Amino acid sequence: MEKYVWQQMRRDEIAEMRDHDAVVILPVGSIEQHGRHLPVDTDIHMAQTVALGAAQALAGEVPVLVAPPVWSGVSPHHMHFTGTLTLSVDTFSQVLKEIVTCMWQHGFRHILLLNGHGGNDQTMKATALKLGAEGIEVGAVTYWDLAAAEIAALVDGERKSVGHACEVETSLMLYLRQELVDMDTAVTDLKVPPTRLPTGGPVYFWPVFDPGTTGVAGDPSHASAEKGKAILEAVVQNLAAFVRRFHKTPIS
Amino acid sequence: MEKYVWQQMRRDEIAEMRDHDAVVILPVGSIEQHGRHLPVDTDIHMAQTVALGAAQALAGEVPVLVAPPVWSGVSPHHMHFTGTLTLSVDTFSQVLKEIVTCMWQHGFRHILLLNGHGGNDQTMKATALKLGAEGIEVGAVTYWDLAAAEIAALVDGERKSVGHACEVETSLMLYLRQELVDMDTAVTDLKVPPTRLPTGGPVYFWPVFDPGTTGVAGDPSHASAEKGKAILEAVVQNLAAFVRRFHKTPIS
Amino acid sequence: MEKYVWQQMRRDEIAEMRDHDAVVILPVGSIEQHGRHLPVDTDIHMAQTVALGAAQALAGEVPVLVAPPVWSGVSPHHMHFTGTLTLSVDTFSQVLKEIVTCMWQHGFRHILLLNGHGGNDQTMKATALKLGAEGIEVGAVTYWDLAAAEIAALVDGERKSVGHACEVETSLMLYLRQELVDMDTAVTDLKVPPTRLPTGGPVYFWPVFDPGTTGVAGDPSHASAEKGKAILEAVVQNLAAFVRRFHKTPIS
Amino acid sequence: MEKYVWQQMRRDEIAEMRDHDAVVILPVGSIEQHGRHLPVDTDIHMAQTVALGAAQALAGEVPVLVAPPVWSGVSPHHMHFTGTLTLSVDTFSQVLKEIVTCMWQHGFRHILLLNGHGGNDQTMKATALKLGAEGIEVGAVTYWDLAAAEIAALVDGERKSVGHACEVETSLMLYLRQELVDMDTAVTDLKVPPTRLPTGGPVYFWPVFDPGTTGVAGDPSHASAEKGKAILEAVVQNLAAFVRRFHKTPIS
Amino acid sequence: MEKYVWQQMRRDEIAEMRDHDAVVILPVGSIEQHGRHLPVDTDIHMAQTVALGAAQALAGEVPVLVAPPVWSGVSPHHMHFTGTLTLSVDTFSQVLKEIVTCMWQHGFRHILLLNGHGGNDQTMKATALKLGAEGIEVGAVTYWDLAAAEIAALVDGERKSVGHACEVETSLMLYLRQELVDMDTAVTDLKVPPTRLPTGGPVYFWPVFDPGTTGVAGDPSHASAEKGKAILEAVVQNLAAFVRRFHKTPIS
Amino acid sequence: MEKYVWQQMRRDEIAEMRDHDAVVILPVGSIEQHGRHLPVDTDIHMAQTVALGAAQALAGEVPVLVAPPVWSGVSPHHMHFTGTLTLSVDTFSQVLKEIVTCMWQHGFRHILLLNGHGGNDQTMKATALKLGAEGIEVGAVTYWDLAAAEIAALVDGERKSVGHACEVETSLMLYLRQELVDMDTAVTDLKVPPTRLPTGGPVYFWPVFDPGTTGVAGDPSHASAEKGKAILEAVVQNLAAFVRRFHKTPIS
Repeated sequence: MEKYVWQQMRRDEIAEMRDHDAVVILPVGSIEQHGRHLPVDTDIHMAQTVALGAAQALAGEVPVLVAPPVWSGVSPHHMHFTGTLTLSVDTFSQVLKEIVTCMWQHGFRHILLLNGHGGNDQTMKATALKLGAEGIEVGAVTYWDLAAAEIAALVDGERKSVGHACEVETSLMLYLRQELVDMDTAVTDLKVPPTRLPTGGPVYFWPVFDPGTTGVAGDPSHASAEKGKAILEAVVQNLAAFVRRFHKTPIS
Repeated sequence: MEKYVWQQMRRDEIAEMRDHDAVVILPVGSIEQHGRHLPVDTDIHMAQTVALGAAQALAGEVPVLVAPPVWSGVSPHHMHFTGTLTLSVDTFSQVLKEIVTCMWQHGFRHILLLNGHGGNDQTMKATALKLGAEGIEVGAVTYWDLAAAEIAALVDGERKSVGHACEVETSLMLYLRQELVDMDTAVTDLKVPPTRLPTGGPVYFWPVFDPGTTGVAGDPSHASAEKGKAILEAVVQNLAAFVRRFHKTPIS
Repeated sequence: MEKYVWQQMRRDEIAEMRDHDAVVILPVGSIEQHGRHLPVDTDIHMAQTVALGAAQALAGEVPVLVAPPVWSGVSPHHMHFTGTLTLSVDTFSQVLKEIVTCMWQHGFRHILLLNGHGGNDQTMKATALKLGAEGIEVGAVTYWDLAAAEIAALVDGERKSVGHACEVETSLMLYLRQELVDMDTAVTDLKVPPTRLPTGGPVYFWPVFDPGTTGVAGDPSHASAEKGKAILEAVVQNLAAFVRRFHKTPIS
Repeated sequence: MEKYVWQQMRRDEIAEMRDHDAVVILPVGSIEQHGRHLPVDTDIHMAQTVALGAAQALAGEVPVLVAPPVWSGVSPHHMHFTGTLTLSVDTFSQVLKEIVTCMWQHGFRHILLLNGHGGNDQTMKATALKLGAEGIEVGAVTYWDLAAAEIAALVDGERKSVGHACEVETSLMLYLRQELVDMDTAVTDLKVPPTRLPTGGPVYFWPVFDPGTTGVAGDPSHASAEKGKAILEAVVQNLAAFVRRFHKTPIS
Repeated sequence: MEKYVWQQMRRDEIAEMRDHDAVVILPVGSIEQHGRHLPVDTDIHMAQTVALGAAQALAGEVPVLVAPPVWSGVSPHHMHFTGTLTLSVDTFSQVLKEIVTCMWQHGFRHILLLNGHGGNDQTMKATALKLGAEGIEVGAVTYWDLAAAEIAALVDGERKSVGHACEVETSLMLYLRQELVDMDTAVTDLKVPPTRLPTGGPVYFWPVFDPGTTGVAGDPSHASAEKGKAILEAVVQNLAAFVRRFHKTPIS
Repeated sequence: MEKYVWQQMRRDEIAEMRDHDAVVILPVGSIEQHGRHLPVDTDIHMAQTVALGAAQALAGEVPVLVAPPVWSGVSPHHMHFTGTLTLSVDTFSQVLKEIVTCMWQHGFRHILLLNGHGGNDQTMKATALKLGAEGIEVGAVTYWDLAAAEIAALVDGERKSVGHACEVETSLMLYLRQELVDMDTAVTDLKVPPTRLPTGGPVYFWPVFDPGTTGVAGDPSHASAEKGKAILEAVVQNLAAFVRRFHKTPIS
C-alpha cells in the first residue's frame, strides 16, 4: 500500500519520494465560522480531502505527497463569530513561504498550494509571486476553481459558484461528514458578498460578516450528499489530471 | 473648470471634495520593461489615464478625485531587463495601506484602487482585505477587468485578454503616446505566460521573464491606435458607471 | 457524548463552551526528522494525543476544548534531514500570538499551550510573555515536564529525560502507532545534545543535527509499547490534574 | 533631442544610458498641506523640477536620467490638515532602498537622491547609510541645501532659509505654477518651527502642525515669481555642477 | 596588568584577543524596578559583576573579554513601577542577534551570553537558536543557574531559588553596593510568582507585577552581605570553570 | 548629595524625579574602531561624560536624570576593523523608540537624546520624528553641534569640525582617559570623509572605512589634554544652558 501522507512518514520515506520527484500538495484552508450549520474546519477539511483524493487516484501512477494541512488562514472578516482563528495576511504569507522553502530545500520541485478558503486566495497567489522572486516556482489554486463548470452545472440554487456555508460547501460536508452538520440551523442568505458596497462586477470588496449578518453567503437549502459526492469527484478528477501534467513538466 | 487632480490642489480644495463625499481613485501601476517597443511606464500611465478619463466623464455629476499615481509596483519577474523598478510584495502592500489609511483619516469613504499591472493584482486585493480588517473598506480593480468582454471583442489576435506588451497595451500606447512607441522592435510571443510550468488552466504560476525570453506576452502586431481608442473608451465608460453606483452607496 | 475537538465543532458549539469557561488546550509541535525509525510528526502527534487524553479524562467534569494542532514549529537544526518543515523563531512566535489572541477575543480565559518539541519551548514561553504584555495571560508547558519524575522512573536507558527519537518518544510511538515505526533502523546515540560545545551543565547550546550525525539523541533500544503506555498515562493524568486546578482559578 | 525621463523611455533606451554610465537623479518629496495657498505637491514638484532642470542643463555633456518621482514622503506632522498623504518613516526608507537597489542591479553606479521635503531629510540620509552597509553607494541631498547662500541672499523676509509654505517655496510656485497658488489665503507665521519646545539652537525637535496652527512656517508675503526664478536657477546650476563632478568620479 | 573590558580597549587590542581565541562574555540584564529597596540596575549589574569576576579569576590562564553590558532587557511586567526601561521581546532578540553576529564576524568563536534577568531567559535562548540556524553557535546562561545548588544551600528563607528583589539579589547588592540599598523599605512577599494563575508546577505563566503588588518576589529580610559574598564567589567560580572548559572546545 | 544616575537609583527615587519634572538625558553612542590610538567606546563615553557634566553643573538648580547609555549605535562602515559592534539602522531606531516610550509612560516630559556618534545622527533624528508621530516629543542633538563655534576656535589642525579619531576626540580622550590612549599609533588622515565620492559640499555620502584606510578622519597630531578640557567645558556649559531653557518649557 502506497504512502502519501507526509507527516505519517519517516525521513527516509520522504527522501525516497523526493528522489522520485514526487508532486507535493500543500492543503491550505482556515478555521472559521461557517454559518450555524457547518463545522469551523470546513475549508481546510475540503482542501485536505481533495488532496488526498487526488493522491489516491494517482496511486501507482504519479508519486504524490500530501503535506500537513495549513489550517491557519486569513479570516479577519469572520472574527465576529466564535470559533474563527485567523492569522494576519502577513503572517499567513510568511508561513506559506517558509514551509514551501523547506520543501524546495529538500529537493522537491513540483509543489502545489491547494486552497479551500476564498479569503486566502489572493494572499496565497501573492506569496507564490514572492517565492518566484527567490527562484522557487510553485503552483497555487483554490479547489473550486478546478471544476467551476462542473459545479455550476451541478448546483440548483440561484448562486452558481462557491460562497460561504453555501449549497456547494454544505453538500460536500453532508457527503463527507454528515454527523457534524446541523441542517436545522442552516439558513439561506443571498445578500452576497455581505458587504455594504456595490457588487456583482469585477471590483473587489472585502466582505465583512458583521454580527448582524447570518454568516452565510449562499443557499444551503439545496444541498445534498449526492451533490457533494459529484462535486468532490469532479474536483478530484480535475486535480489529478493537472498533477499528471505537472509531474511531466521539467523544472530546473 | 472642475479640478480633480489631488496633487495639484490646495488643502482647502481637497477638504471641500471630502465634504462632498468625493470618490477617490488611486492609480496603481509599475515601472517595468514592456518588450522592446513600449515605454516602461505603460501600466501606471494606463491606470492614470483611465482614472482621469472617468473623472472627466463624470465632471459636474459625481465629485471625483484622482490621487497621485503609485507607480512603484511588484515586478520582480521583470528585473532581468533594464528599466524595471520593483518593490517587494510586502513594501508595495504597506505603501497602499498607509496611503489609503491617510485618505480614510481625512474623511474620504469611497476609495477605489485602480490597477494597471497584473503582478499587482493579488497583492492589491490582499491589501484591501488587510484594510478591511481595520475597518477601512475600499474597492480594488485592474482596469482591463472592467471591460473584459469589450476587449475580447475588439482584439484581432489569438489572445483575447491582456498579456504584457501585447495587442491591447500596444494599441493603447499607440493611441495615447505614439511618439514613445517603437513598432520596429515589437515582436509577437505567444508562449504566455512565459513560464516553464503547465498553463492554460486555473492554476496560478508566477511568470518569469528570463533573459532568454522576449519580455513580451502577446501579439502587438495587431495593435492599432483606433483599437486603443475603442478599448480606452470602453474601460473609461465602465469605470464611470461603477463610480456613479459607488458614490450612491452609503458607507458608514 | 461530549465534544471537545475545536475544529470539528460548529460556531454555536464553541460559543457554548466559551460560556462554560472551557479550558482551551492548544497542541504545539513540529514536523521534523525523528531518526530513521520514527515518523516526522512524532512531536505534534504527542502534544495532540496528550491534550485529547486529558480532555477525555475530564469529560463531564471540566469543560475542555482541544484546538487544532500547530504542527509548524522551530526546527532549523533538523533541516539537514529530509522531511523537516520549520518556521523561523519569529514566524512561529507570531502564529502562536495571533491564534491565542483570537481565542482571547472570543472570550476564552483559560488557555494552555501544550508543546511536544524541545526546540519550541523557549520561543513558546517568550511568546507567553509577549501576550502577557498585552494583557493576555496563558499557560505554557512542554508535555514531558508534566511528568519528569515518572518518566525518569520508567526509562531503563542511561538517559533519564527526553532527547530526540529516544527511549521515551519511541516507546510512545510504539504504543500509539506501531505501524509507523521501523525499529530495524533505530540506532542509539548518546552523544547528546549533538553539539560540539561543552554540555552537561546549565549552559544552553543550540544542538545541530549535522548530516554526519544519526539525528538521534537517546537510546531507543530500550523502548517498548508498555513503557509508552505508562508514560502517556502519567502525563495525561498530571495534565488533567493541572487543568482541574486551572479551571478553578478565576482570570479577570 | 535627448531623452532623460526614465519612465517615458523603453528598456533599451535605459540600458543604453546605463552603458554610458548615466547619473540617475531620483526626485523625492511629499504630498502634504502647504498652508492654504500652495498645492499639496509643492515639495515633490520642486524636486522633480530641479532634477529636470539639471538634466536639461547638462544635455549633450553629461548623460543624466531623471527617475520617476517618489512623492510619498514622511509627513505625519501635517496629517491634521486634509490632503496630506504620508508614509511611516520605515516604509519610506524601505521604498527608497528597494528602488535604489533596482537601479544598482541594473548597473547604474552614480545615483543621487534629490529631496524636496524637510521631513524626509534625515530618513533619506539614514537610508543612504543602510544602502552603504550593503555596498550600494548613493548621494543624498535636499535641494535648498545646494544653494543655501544664494537663497539667503535672495530672500527679503526675516527668515533666511526654507521653512514651510514660506517665502522661498511660494516664490518658486509663483514662478512655476502661478495658476495653482492662491495668494489671498497666504499668511505669515514666524513661530517656526511650530513646536512647543525650545528652538533656535542645534537641538532637533519634531515640529507638529497642530490644527490650531496656520500650517505655515515662514513669510510668503515677500514671495515673487522673479525671486522664484532666481532661486531655481541657482539651485539648478549648483546641482548641475555637482552632477558634472559626480559623473567623473569612478565608483567601483 | 591584563585588560579584558572590551569597550575600554583599542581595536588592535581586541584583535589580539581574537587571535588568542578569547572567550567573550556578553552581560545581559535589565533596568527595572526591584522593590522599593534595590536599585533598578540590579540585574545587569550582577551579570556584569559575575562576568568581570570570572575574567579576573582566569587572568593569565584563559583569555577572556567582557563585552559592553546589554542593559536593555525584557521587562514589560515591571512597567507599572517607575524606572523600568523595557524592550519588546522582538527588539531585545534582534539586539542580541546583531551584536553577537558582529563578534562572530570579527572572528570570535567562543561567545557566552550571561544573563541576570529572569524575563530575558527564554528569549535569550530562543535567540541562541536563531543564531545557530545561521551557523553561529553561542552559549547562553542565567547566572544563578550556574550555582543553583550552592544558592539553595546558602539561603535561609523559605524560597530557595532566585525570585525578584529577594534574599539572593538583596544579599548580593548588600555585599556589592550597600550604599544604594534601602533596607528600611524592603518587604517580604512570598505570593510568587505574583500571578493570578496556578503555580508551583512546570507550567509557565507570565508574572505580572501589578500596581497593587509589592514588586517583590521573595524574602529580603534574610539577606546579608556575607551571604552575598558567598553566593557571588560560588557563581564566579562555576562560571570560571565553565569558561575554562569552553575555551578548550574547538569550534569550527 | 544629589543623585542623577538613573540606573543607580531605586524606583521611588526615580518617581520623585518624575514628580519634579526632571529633564532626562539619554546618552547615545557606539562601540567602534577609533583608529589605532583610541578606545572603541570613545563616542558613548563622550555622550555620557557630557550628560553627567551637565547634570552636575545644574545640581541644586534643575532636576536632571542621566539615563543608562545606549552604546549600541549604527556603525556598519566601521565593521572592517575589529572591535566594532553595530546595530542595523532599523534596530537602533527601535531601541531608541522603545526606551523613550518607557520614559514617557512613566511621566517624564522633558527627554533629550544626546548623541556622540556621527553615524547615529540622522537615524536618531528620524526616530524623534517617529516618536513625534505618536505624540511623544523629544529633543535630539549630537554633542559637538552644541559648541560648533567654540570647537572651531579651539582646534589647531586644518579640519575645524569633528571627524573620527580626530583632533577633537583625541583631545577629549587625552583629558579624560589618557591611560587608554596610545598616541604612538595615532596617524593623521585628511582624506575625509573617507569615501570615493565627491565631497566638500552639501551632498551626503556614506563614508566607508575600508580595510585599506587608516580608520581615521582628522588630525590627532594636534590633540592635547588641555584642548580636551576646554572643549568639554564648552559643550557641557552649552548643554546646561539648553537644559535650563528646556526645563522651563511646558510640555503637555
